[in-house]
Amino acid sequence: MRDEDKIELSHGDGGKLTHQLIKEEILSRLDSPALLSLGDAAILENFSGRLAFTTDSYVVNPIFFPGGDIGKLAVSGTVNDLAVSFATPLYLTLGLIIEAGLSFGELRGILDSIAKTAKEAGVKVVAGDTKVVEKGKGDKVYINTAGIGVVSEGRHPSSIQPGDKVIINGEIGSHGVAVLSSRQGLDFSTTVRSDCAPLNDLLNCIRDLPIRIMRDPTRGGLATTLVELSHMSNMEIIINEEDIPILPATQGACDMLGLDPLYLANEGKVVMVVPKDMTEEVLIRLRSHPLGTRAAVIGEVTRKASYPASEYDGHVFLKTVIGGLRPLGMLTGEPLPRIC
Amino acid sequence: MRDEDKIELSHGDGGKLTHQLIKEEILSRLDSPALLSLGDAAILENFSGRLAFTTDSYVVNPIFFPGGDIGKLAVSGTVNDLAVSFATPLYLTLGLIIEAGLSFGELRGILDSIAKTAKEAGVKVVAGDTKVVEKGKGDKVYINTAGIGVVSEGRHPSSIQPGDKVIINGEIGSHGVAVLSSRQGLDFSTTVRSDCAPLNDLLNCIRDLPIRIMRDPTRGGLATTLVELSHMSNMEIIINEEDIPILPATQGACDMLGLDPLYLANEGKVVMVVPKDMTEEVLIRLRSHPLGTRAAVIGEVTRKASYPASEYDGHVFLKTVIGGLRPLGMLTGEPLPRIC
Repeated sequence: MRDEDKIELSHGDGGKLTHQLIKEEILSRLDSPALLSLGDAAILENFSGRLAFTTDSYVVNPIFFPGGDIGKLAVSGTVNDLAVSFATPLYLTLGLIIEAGLSFGELRGILDSIAKTAKEAGVKVVAGDTKVVEKGKGDKVYINTAGIGVVSEGRHPSSIQPGDKVIINGEIGSHGVAVLSSRQGLDFSTTVRSDCAPLNDLLNCIRDLPIRIMRDPTRGGLATTLVELSHMSNMEIIINEEDIPILPATQGACDMLGLDPLYLANEGKVVMVVPKDMTEEVLIRLRSHPLGTRAAVIGEVTRKASYPASEYDGHVFLKTVIGGLRPLGMLTGEPLPRIC
Repeated sequence: MRDEDKIELSHGDGGKLTHQLIKEEILSRLDSPALLSLGDAAILENFSGRLAFTTDSYVVNPIFFPGGDIGKLAVSGTVNDLAVSFATPLYLTLGLIIEAGLSFGELRGILDSIAKTAKEAGVKVVAGDTKVVEKGKGDKVYINTAGIGVVSEGRHPSSIQPGDKVIINGEIGSHGVAVLSSRQGLDFSTTVRSDCAPLNDLLNCIRDLPIRIMRDPTRGGLATTLVELSHMSNMEIIINEEDIPILPATQGACDMLGLDPLYLANEGKVVMVVPKDMTEEVLIRLRSHPLGTRAAVIGEVTRKASYPASEYDGHVFLKTVIGGLRPLGMLTGEPLPRIC
């Protein structure tokens, strides 16, 4: 097929065209012995111990954006969900829901990106599924990835303590701004590129350190993630506005669009809570990795004070540059749909 | 929320409304300790040995049909992919892509069905993801499930041999006809209900028998599945039209619509190849289970003859009732989109 040819409904009928599509476009790119078997499930030998298992669907619009595409996102996002759970990501499944009319060129671009990102992250795509829906019943392509990782003995989250520090590996909001800037109808240009990247190699650098907990602040942004952490630990978290890394171009785009970068999606960021005496060591190691050069301590954990908070808001406060204390809730009433 | 309230885009923003939706609608139904943790991945303890890992997306239209719904299908389909791979299904992930405008009543119906079917199949939903897309960019709801199972020592497919028998556990084509009959614009009524069901309990009855290989003939139907088996084994398969179980109502609908039941989707059927001397034992055991009462031998494996076949057609032949020998290829040029 030429790049400008289109996927048709019959590519999803489960028959000859489906087999052809899978063999010629997908299997040829994702070189995996397990995937090449014709069986209904991949068989993975010699597992032992604790498994991590996760899934995410990706519906980002548009499917190509500065710094990435839906394929890179679908691999990175699921790899990161495993990595922040202290797991070593190993295997992915790939579920494609293609809207009839997607060009073979677009599909190939996405599949190449999936293959490249999987190789970079050291994971194998071992099983997949391809469906095709009518034009007007999808949006080019939606992707689901599920992932399996192994969790080594002794690696698990531990209780957050007062005095612990909150660290992030770099600038916030880049993914959100990059995707928004490439949306039809949003007439602004920016140099910001998505931070979309697999983080497992970065997190390998600190795997022997006693990190309390890690999260990737995707949909809902840094603020929503901190509220989740505050909730589950029953602790208060104070972050300092002036310490939060952000690109001037991201801040500029947020000012122009009236968006709060604390609520913008990130796809290559990790927030971690670490014991105070580990802070320097964690920072040094993160900063020695290309994905952590701008790592910074952005706040700390304190005992819960008596500020009232609703069920879905936590005890998270932002010390603003001008000295105020602003309570942060979860993202609400500000829909930025299809950001990941 | 009342049943007639609608899902809105902001239910997918990753913030407060997303958390509320997940907690109040999903977690409340799918009672699983692993799912209830707020972490990014479920942690599953004490695995050892061989794992089976699979995924499928479900885009069936309409989402409710006689005999089932997209939720029942999403659990059954993935459980069956594991079960026919000789695995014991254990854990599922659940990825929802909801079109804005889906009613809470519809969502609840599907989630109840997922919970009921998972309980029936003995599997746990341990991780999930919920996205919302704009009206006109989806079709009520698409579901992805990924599944993990364990494969006991010594359980694996083995080579198909000449003389082996081909067995199916019941009537073909019911799922395809049931879904088609409930499509808008297709003006026919039928008593046929989808066969959609988890098959792991049925297959447990024969788990100690030396089954060569198993497949669930879903999209593409029985004929496409047999062509796949013929391809991978490099053997010829001859099936007898008069031995293939089919409901008179299914045959009637096929005659009326000009469809071939050999190419209609099944969602509660398994095709297996068994050594000849095991045939009776397998049949007795299958027939003793509610999902196998109409189990039948439908054909046998022979050495490949010299009939020419294209790359995507196999060496599968149908002995017709009137004595002819019809070659069967994969489904082609007959798109029945969104059947599963």
